[in-house]
Amino acid sequence: MAPAEPEAVPFRPKGEVPFFPEEREGWKGYIEWEKYPEKKKKAEEILSNYDFPNPPEFQLCPLPDKNPVLEGVRWKQYHEAMGPTLKNIPDVSWDYVKKEKSPDMIHVLQFPYNGEPPRNRLVANEHTTNADHFVRNHGGVPEIDADQWSLDISGLVNNPQRLTLADLKDESRFPRQTNVVTIQCSGTRRIEQIHEYPGDGDELINAPWGEGAIGTARWTGVSLKKIIKYCGGLKEGAQHLEFYGADTYFKKSKVYNYVVSVPWRKVKLNEVLVAWEMNGEPMPRIHGFPVRTVAFGYIGARSCKWLYEIKAIEEPSLAPVQMKEYLYYTPQVGKQNAMYSNGFSIQDMPVSSAIMSPVNMDQIVHDGKIKLRGWAYSGGGHWPVRVEVSGDGGSVWYEVQYEQMTKKYYHAWRLWEIDMPVDAEGWLEFCVRTWDNALNTQPTFVRSAWNWDLHVTSSCHRIKIYSINRSKPVTAARLELLKKKGIPIVPITHPLEIDLESEEDYTRRMRAQGGREPDE
Amino acid sequence: MAPAEPEAVPFRPKGEVPFFPEEREGWKGYIEWEKYPEKKKKAEEILSNYDFPNPPEFQLCPLPDKNPVLEGVRWKQYHEAMGPTLKNIPDVSWDYVKKEKSPDMIHVLQFPYNGEPPRNRLVANEHTTNADHFVRNHGGVPEIDADQWSLDISGLVNNPQRLTLADLKDESRFPRQTNVVTIQCSGTRRIEQIHEYPGDGDELINAPWGEGAIGTARWTGVSLKKIIKYCGGLKEGAQHLEFYGADTYFKKSKVYNYVVSVPWRKVKLNEVLVAWEMNGEPMPRIHGFPVRTVAFGYIGARSCKWLYEIKAIEEPSLAPVQMKEYLYYTPQVGKQNAMYSNGFSIQDMPVSSAIMSPVNMDQIVHDGKIKLRGWAYSGGGHWPVRVEVSGDGGSVWYEVQYEQMTKKYYHAWRLWEIDMPVDAEGWLEFCVRTWDNALNTQPTFVRSAWNWDLHVTSSCHRIKIYSINRSKPVTAARLELLKKKGIPIVPITHPLEIDLESEEDYTRRMRAQGGREPDE
Repeated sequence: MAPAEPEAVPFRPKGEVPFFPEEREGWKGYIEWEKYPEKKKKAEEILSNYDFPNPPEFQLCPLPDKNPVLEGVRWKQYHEAMGPTLKNIPDVSWDYVKKEKSPDMIHVLQFPYNGEPPRNRLVANEHTTNADHFVRNHGGVPEIDADQWSLDISGLVNNPQRLTLADLKDESRFPRQTNVVTIQCSGTRRIEQIHEYPGDGDELINAPWGEGAIGTARWTGVSLKKIIKYCGGLKEGAQHLEFYGADTYFKKSKVYNYVVSVPWRKVKLNEVLVAWEMNGEPMPRIHGFPVRTVAFGYIGARSCKWLYEIKAIEEPSLAPVQMKEYLYYTPQVGKQNAMYSNGFSIQDMPVSSAIMSPVNMDQIVHDGKIKLRGWAYSGGGHWPVRVEVSGDGGSVWYEVQYEQMTKKYYHAWRLWEIDMPVDAEGWLEFCVRTWDNALNTQPTFVRSAWNWDLHVTSSCHRIKIYSINRSKPVTAARLELLKKKGIPIVPITHPLEIDLESEEDYTRRMRAQGGREPDE
Repeated sequence: MAPAEPEAVPFRPKGEVPFFPEEREGWKGYIEWEKYPEKKKKAEEILSNYDFPNPPEFQLCPLPDKNPVLEGVRWKQYHEAMGPTLKNIPDVSWDYVKKEKSPDMIHVLQFPYNGEPPRNRLVANEHTTNADHFVRNHGGVPEIDADQWSLDISGLVNNPQRLTLADLKDESRFPRQTNVVTIQCSGTRRIEQIHEYPGDGDELINAPWGEGAIGTARWTGVSLKKIIKYCGGLKEGAQHLEFYGADTYFKKSKVYNYVVSVPWRKVKLNEVLVAWEMNGEPMPRIHGFPVRTVAFGYIGARSCKWLYEIKAIEEPSLAPVQMKEYLYYTPQVGKQNAMYSNGFSIQDMPVSSAIMSPVNMDQIVHDGKIKLRGWAYSGGGHWPVRVEVSGDGGSVWYEVQYEQMTKKYYHAWRLWEIDMPVDAEGWLEFCVRTWDNALNTQPTFVRSAWNWDLHVTSSCHRIKIYSINRSKPVTAARLELLKKKGIPIVPITHPLEIDLESEEDYTRRMRAQGGREPDE
């Protein structure tokens, strides 16, 4: 395997530096692309002048051992090529990471920012703190003045409207709604799929997420259903609602705003919120300030940040994030035959779970029980009803007791813990599976559900644990000896300087076994 | 995971520099330890003054991407600490690597030298060339003048003898014997065990071998049975023959010559050769010049290089390589409970095989068939009678035809090849298993036979292959399109700049499928 290619090729503008003005006063870093086909065309021409550097090879090689794991040079250069309005967006965005997120976040991709909290803290609170909540951005952070923000409701609605934040907060017009909702990136646990088999090398790096691209918060805002009602309802034929985000998105050398859609039937259930509060605080900039959507039980990509327009349309959006991304392919589809129409669109998230403590490769001294902690989630309005863990790769299962799980929500995870009996020593495979209220459970192995775009790693989460069971006399004796000599037992790969057995003991035991060879 | 520790801690002699003279004229780099307990004791005292650097962590981290993979600094320093006689042995040994081995060997461990040939060449010849034959040394290369070499036959023999090379070559006294013999290191394919679960971190690094720590040569010499007969046979009670090699070996801060033993019953079968030719040429220095043993069907460790003494004894040798190394533990035994008496001693090698072409992670364009090539071997006088390959991880098996296997030997491998039908595209798991004449076959998975000392990876060899089947119309069309545009399909992880499908085709196909959502 080749080493990772160096990412950094310095950017040099080609031709005249373009200028795309910001669209609105008080909105920094927002270029409106969707309304101006000629602007999109010009941007495409500019991009075609460049030979952007390939993202570094990180799938066929070991991941870089650093934080951030990947930098996103190509995406930075896309922004730089768009001229002064977007040139500094990578720096601005990184500043918000430092300002708004916990200092020990695991930065998976620097730009656009993708990061998850340390494993132990993810399951420390039923509701994730704003600082710890994972971030999966598709572009830079636009800086929008809340007082100058407004939202256009357009397309196939009877009375198109422009609403300010003050309008939305006016409870005489819009009843306020707060929900505890888990948002999950469909890339959660992608690292396991990458380790199994490398997949699509997207222009926007398919970030090698761990188990932390999931978080739970109390979101406050207005049900989108009420807003549509306020606009006189939908016109005949309208079936989907398209969300426009102020960040700039790139796909196949073309430029866009971030656009996705959800079906009206979802909105009708009051399961799509137009939200301005996260855990009782104003929306953090990096999470979509001032206003974003929150689509319950759906893939995180439908919860559109820096929202500025909602358009009623007939069919699902043809914007790239909806049409060309977040597709789930059958395992035999790949670079040689993938299309947009032969993958299905990921909306509802399936049942899944993860062990957050201990972590993979831990070497644990215990007395016959090991405490496991983790999360369990099911989207689409389902909830986890049973969590089962196994210490032998999935043959014998232990059920997590009701008292050891956090409360049920229609749209949120449950945290769980269990003291699992562990007798065996050596390397063991711990795994977890969850059953939701519809009896859905998880695929058995990563291979069972591997897919080209490396989405939705919902297979049983497996970790390798080295078990050192102090309740075994031989083990207890060796631990005692090592303690006396001040030699730690971990890491187990560290050579043990002491003799494992005296020549006398060895000879006696070998003879008792009848020696190394038969007598006759 | 922590990054690999830096290996290089410069060596600084502590106290007076010791001097251990060479034992014999014409023998450079050979210190006799086994005859002089007081010398051993002095060496032990010297070693105890040092705090030798830990070997770098390579099991819990990705392997260093270089050649040599590991340097062996600690082992070099052991030699340096022994004073001027051994100080330069690492350099001398490395010079023989450069002089006697192919320039493109995969150097797994620089000192003591461990290296294997490139995969394609290993199966290029039924008999491995001397330059390509793997090397697994346990110490440095002593430089012995053949004219001044002699071999002592000692211990429980009726007439102890000292024999020169001229004596051994005297066909009036000793009938000459040539055999085609495969020698295999029990570490072959260890990398697979390390990837599955890290194991013992030995002072002498457990080298992360690939599939190439195996080789086949025509060895010429005298059957040890004839030598024992020449010495008047064994005395009452003698059951084993202990071999002494002139290289210096270290274990748990003590110093030794390389010493192992084989049972007399093996020798009686004329299956242990005292050999001075390899493929018709004088023994290469790095392979044991002038004389070594070759124990047929046994683990390579019993084929003792730089042989200078053979001693008849009652029980298997208590020397560290025989008593403390090459033990096979049950999977639940590890650092916390491993002893020398609770692992069994590896002698006969079991049936095993490997796919040498294609190689793991290859991405292959084909027309419905992929050619596989590899080796198959079984030790202990067994031979491979059937090789089977699978393209689906081991559900459907294809038998390699007789004409596609090299000839049978009692003590050598068979090379094989097959054009395996491959219909499916995407990531597939190819694997091979072999049946020997006693119907032994291989464990299914690495986990099935993982063991703490990471020996004998005899489980079915599995490789991940990405299949691109040009006989599929959709694939053929895309390959044609990419060819026209001059875009290579590999590596598959490289982003594809072209659009996968036009908006028109997408819309048409989506509508034909009934759209993304149900109508009702």
